[in-house]
Amino acid sequence: MEIPGKFQPGDRNSITDVPGVTAAHVTIKEACINTGVTIISPCNGDVFTNQLPAAVAVGNGFGKLAGALQIEEMGALESLIGLTNTLSVAALMQGLVNYHAPKLPEDYNSINVLVGETNDCRLNDIKGFHIRPEHVTQAISLLSKDIEEGDVGAGTGTVCFGFKGGIGTSSRVISVEDEDFTVGALVQSNYGGRLKIYGQTVPKLPKSNEILQAQPENGSCMIVLLTDAPLSSRQLKRLAKRGLIGMTETGSIMQNGSGDFCVAASNFEKNRRNIYSKAGQYYYLNDSQLNPFFIAAVEAVQEALYNSMTMAKGAGRGDYFYPGLNLADYKDILHLKDLEV
Amino acid sequence: MEIPGKFQPGDRNSITDVPGVTAAHVTIKEACINTGVTIISPCNGDVFTNQLPAAVAVGNGFGKLAGALQIEEMGALESLIGLTNTLSVAALMQGLVNYHAPKLPEDYNSINVLVGETNDCRLNDIKGFHIRPEHVTQAISLLSKDIEEGDVGAGTGTVCFGFKGGIGTSSRVISVEDEDFTVGALVQSNYGGRLKIYGQTVPKLPKSNEILQAQPENGSCMIVLLTDAPLSSRQLKRLAKRGLIGMTETGSIMQNGSGDFCVAASNFEKNRRNIYSKAGQYYYLNDSQLNPFFIAAVEAVQEALYNSMTMAKGAGRGDYFYPGLNLADYKDILHLKDLEV
Amino acid sequence: MEIPGKFQPGDRNSITDVPGVTAAHVTIKEACINTGVTIISPCNGDVFTNQLPAAVAVGNGFGKLAGALQIEEMGALESLIGLTNTLSVAALMQGLVNYHAPKLPEDYNSINVLVGETNDCRLNDIKGFHIRPEHVTQAISLLSKDIEEGDVGAGTGTVCFGFKGGIGTSSRVISVEDEDFTVGALVQSNYGGRLKIYGQTVPKLPKSNEILQAQPENGSCMIVLLTDAPLSSRQLKRLAKRGLIGMTETGSIMQNGSGDFCVAASNFEKNRRNIYSKAGQYYYLNDSQLNPFFIAAVEAVQEALYNSMTMAKGAGRGDYFYPGLNLADYKDILHLKDLEV
Amino acid sequence: MEIPGKFQPGDRNSITDVPGVTAAHVTIKEACINTGVTIISPCNGDVFTNQLPAAVAVGNGFGKLAGALQIEEMGALESLIGLTNTLSVAALMQGLVNYHAPKLPEDYNSINVLVGETNDCRLNDIKGFHIRPEHVTQAISLLSKDIEEGDVGAGTGTVCFGFKGGIGTSSRVISVEDEDFTVGALVQSNYGGRLKIYGQTVPKLPKSNEILQAQPENGSCMIVLLTDAPLSSRQLKRLAKRGLIGMTETGSIMQNGSGDFCVAASNFEKNRRNIYSKAGQYYYLNDSQLNPFFIAAVEAVQEALYNSMTMAKGAGRGDYFYPGLNLADYKDILHLKDLEV
Repeated sequence: MEIPGKFQPGDRNSITDVPGVTAAHVTIKEACINTGVTIISPCNGDVFTNQLPAAVAVGNGFGKLAGALQIEEMGALESLIGLTNTLSVAALMQGLVNYHAPKLPEDYNSINVLVGETNDCRLNDIKGFHIRPEHVTQAISLLSKDIEEGDVGAGTGTVCFGFKGGIGTSSRVISVEDEDFTVGALVQSNYGGRLKIYGQTVPKLPKSNEILQAQPENGSCMIVLLTDAPLSSRQLKRLAKRGLIGMTETGSIMQNGSGDFCVAASNFEKNRRNIYSKAGQYYYLNDSQLNPFFIAAVEAVQEALYNSMTMAKGAGRGDYFYPGLNLADYKDILHLKDLEV
Repeated sequence: MEIPGKFQPGDRNSITDVPGVTAAHVTIKEACINTGVTIISPCNGDVFTNQLPAAVAVGNGFGKLAGALQIEEMGALESLIGLTNTLSVAALMQGLVNYHAPKLPEDYNSINVLVGETNDCRLNDIKGFHIRPEHVTQAISLLSKDIEEGDVGAGTGTVCFGFKGGIGTSSRVISVEDEDFTVGALVQSNYGGRLKIYGQTVPKLPKSNEILQAQPENGSCMIVLLTDAPLSSRQLKRLAKRGLIGMTETGSIMQNGSGDFCVAASNFEKNRRNIYSKAGQYYYLNDSQLNPFFIAAVEAVQEALYNSMTMAKGAGRGDYFYPGLNLADYKDILHLKDLEV
Repeated sequence: MEIPGKFQPGDRNSITDVPGVTAAHVTIKEACINTGVTIISPCNGDVFTNQLPAAVAVGNGFGKLAGALQIEEMGALESLIGLTNTLSVAALMQGLVNYHAPKLPEDYNSINVLVGETNDCRLNDIKGFHIRPEHVTQAISLLSKDIEEGDVGAGTGTVCFGFKGGIGTSSRVISVEDEDFTVGALVQSNYGGRLKIYGQTVPKLPKSNEILQAQPENGSCMIVLLTDAPLSSRQLKRLAKRGLIGMTETGSIMQNGSGDFCVAASNFEKNRRNIYSKAGQYYYLNDSQLNPFFIAAVEAVQEALYNSMTMAKGAGRGDYFYPGLNLADYKDILHLKDLEV
Repeated sequence: MEIPGKFQPGDRNSITDVPGVTAAHVTIKEACINTGVTIISPCNGDVFTNQLPAAVAVGNGFGKLAGALQIEEMGALESLIGLTNTLSVAALMQGLVNYHAPKLPEDYNSINVLVGETNDCRLNDIKGFHIRPEHVTQAISLLSKDIEEGDVGAGTGTVCFGFKGGIGTSSRVISVEDEDFTVGALVQSNYGGRLKIYGQTVPKLPKSNEILQAQPENGSCMIVLLTDAPLSSRQLKRLAKRGLIGMTETGSIMQNGSGDFCVAASNFEKNRRNIYSKAGQYYYLNDSQLNPFFIAAVEAVQEALYNSMTMAKGAGRGDYFYPGLNLADYKDILHLKDLEV
């Protein structure tokens, strides 16, 4: 299937196409437990001593994203990024604090960790608290350029439009003044609405979707955008807002009970903020150059969300089953002429 | 054509379906002048002495919307709403201040007027400043339930996706606990991107669109949402954010130079804030009841934007011409089976 | 000493003067460990099923306040409030989630807990992680109307202007239309600047202050305001901003590395949001009645901050000692004629 | 009188100590008319083609500040700054648009002008609309380094704590790494509360103050901060928040009806944003270097506010008279030992 859109993905079509970025999952599947942890390392070297310009955009704030206020004030990301289920944010924060605290310079006693979540209670015994800080350590030991998608890590138990959702990733490459930059997205999909595949409303959803539709507050979406372009924290906030458009493009209206957030950070090496430096020079792109990045963010997030469903194997609990999304099932109805899956 | 979507429009399919709401245009077309004024009266009676809960959402803030900061702080709309071109915001503010000031109670000396704008420079001699405060007075004298759409009023000179844009309006009716409420939208469309008609990307745009695409900072969208549902200013802010989704649904990614704003207000009579009252009671709907309103806002704005183009007669300047949008031209390509125009 | 100001404190001069409010501390002092937990229960009955209108104001966002984003979106507090040290936010979140999760209605699987912090590393082995979720349970079992101040609970290890800071509380009573309302403040003080006592700059600080001054990023202040007045979440945001003025009145300029936040909530019984209700009526005070509340918030926070220092016994670590503040020491210099301590 | 504080003023103790900054007033005093215009030119050369990093902080948003939303989005100031009375914002906007529009490059058709206001209705026939766009032109022709203070320009009719307020200015010089930077403040004072002079509450206010106190919504404060230090728009937002502390230090609690705003911009030459450039390098100071700037902003705004009252000659209307502030009157009561006026 030729992906509609303006820009091409990077080599892996993954957030790890951004230089320096790695990620890993810990997946927990046992009886009624379907949950996990996803960790993203956003750069080479230590992120605390050489911080990244960063920003957070709030689509709908019914969520427990931790670390956002300091990012808003300082415009900087200083930790790895963790994703998990709603009731395990504390466990993940603890795991990340445990990881970062011993590495802090001796006279530094503060670390702002970023943890996002969505609620996997439909497939997971979420009140059983099956995520522990050690899962963060485990995930960090597995960080790599190759990321699985679908029902893995923090997406193990999530559900999207009645399909099995989960983790998805994608990337886009932009050329500015003969220099290539990459925008990479990683999403944790767990929301509903009227599913649209590249604009086409999917007319018939699986049975499980009916149950989903009946739930008044059905879910959230956590989005991470990383880039190696020299964007400032203000510009990254603008980029993060476009990440949320990638989500609404799939058919969400950001429902009342939805925690829809997008965090964006830049790991352009020369702009990293050394905590010991007092002054220096930053590279920048003028805002007039941002439109391609905005489009790339929309496209990468949108495809990452589809990937989170198409790569999922499906999972059930009790009477119902959430299948992965098979685009071929909708070939005729969707009028996607180019669809070759 | 059957409109895709969940809710039905009101009788007029217009923002004036909301009880108490009227609007009017002053249209100026002379040689290289294509501009105008649109005024919306958001309620029965005096809006200053009995103010409306209100909020503003910013999609992309490259614009000159006046009055937003006080609405954010006080959560109240206290004036008529005016729309015009970018360089005439001052003229419109003056016209609205001239209208409201003499009606203020004697010991009140402040009025916060709300004026939105988009830039009609492609078809209008905008630097000629052809809007004067008197046009506001003229528009107010014409306020009615019947609103023209297309290249009229503040939309006289605007352009959208290479088509002639302008003013569009639409409404949706929602039933909550056996009570009907209306959400009405009025838009001033003047932006670009990749036009999508209910999800279908329009593959071939008119020639003028190429010129439009070549412009780096191509345009803005001003959206007004009114409702008679008892929503608080906090809830109206949430509604206003969904108005912006209605815009991105048409194919915008809210470009760098775009002033994309949505103001939302409720004129539910018993919740109007009398400036002399010290305390009282408000009616409310719980946030758990908001999803239908969110969907209605998206649908009403989206249709209003299409209406702004389909109702436009088209206009040109110099070598190029911006035609209105004729959906029938795209019937086959769009796979809109129900399309009967 | 007669307290300068416009309004009188309530009976206890404590946040617990607000009906329904209780609080408790767990204090940990062992060798190099000086830290603890403070829990505030903001209302009678279950705060999740009958939520409180609430808001958060950010003075300077270099801090780890958890739960703020959902409060901003929904305008509601749904949990107890916890305070602790910077690196123990996760432990406190876990403790609060452990407390609330089993009490949630069966079909509810989400809880947004509010946890504030300041950094007690000057007196505490903060990287030793001595706070555990169980301390939350312990504190909850101790909730009462009588709150200790000074070096207790989350203030055990904090430092303020070179003095020993800690927990302070205060309240003010306001009469509106013959009805009395209370504004109560509880603070966790851990910041610096040029100490002012009711406007008078304290000219000579203890030796330890010099060390404090030398630290580039010296500390934070977490403020909680509760009231039984029928204020909306929008109005509470306005109130919370005034809580921060109470802090700057003491001599802070909200330094670069400071996490200065104020959360405000109203437990006016008839306005509590029942999660099962769909619609209803709220009582309100017009914004024109808010000035007394603003003044009360400033006064209560300011006095609570002084109380946090004057009630502290003092504590040291290594070569230096942070004494409590003895206002009598500054009687002559401060020209506080009424000062009788 | 030796000014309390940490930093020294620049040569003029004026916002014009910042290189490139000039300002001017047009003062209108005729019978019941007491109003005017103040214009600040924030830099050398054209501010539109080489824009300034900038930000706006909102203390209390009951005001009509125009231009703030675009500054928030783009982080850039592109116009001169105008101040006037509340009902003349439109006239000033028009005057500034008239000034800038003809100077725009031919293919640019948008200008975001910044206009602040306070309400001078106590001394001015504000509903008579005595400010016209031409007054902007007149003020621009008078731009200079020498600025009058007190009852001039936009401060001609304003009132502060029962004294005659008006325009005040002040500056502070900070040395960072052997380089000197200046922070300059200009204020339009028109608010109330309990006046404090460097912390000392002024115990007895003039008779007119009682009338002022009786007014429920008494006034606003508009603050402009300019600097030649290389601060980013994010850092300038932080600086602007501290400008508001300078205001509350004088005894304001930012009353309900107050429009309290601070705009901050940097004219560091090498960081100006050329509208034609696509990319480049910026100089920066690390956030860890900002505390001195924060203190300087508080001190400069605070002194500028006192200057606005002490430099005012006083004015009256009807039965009451607002005198200028004579600090010598309060020498004994205030315990300002160093006070030599």
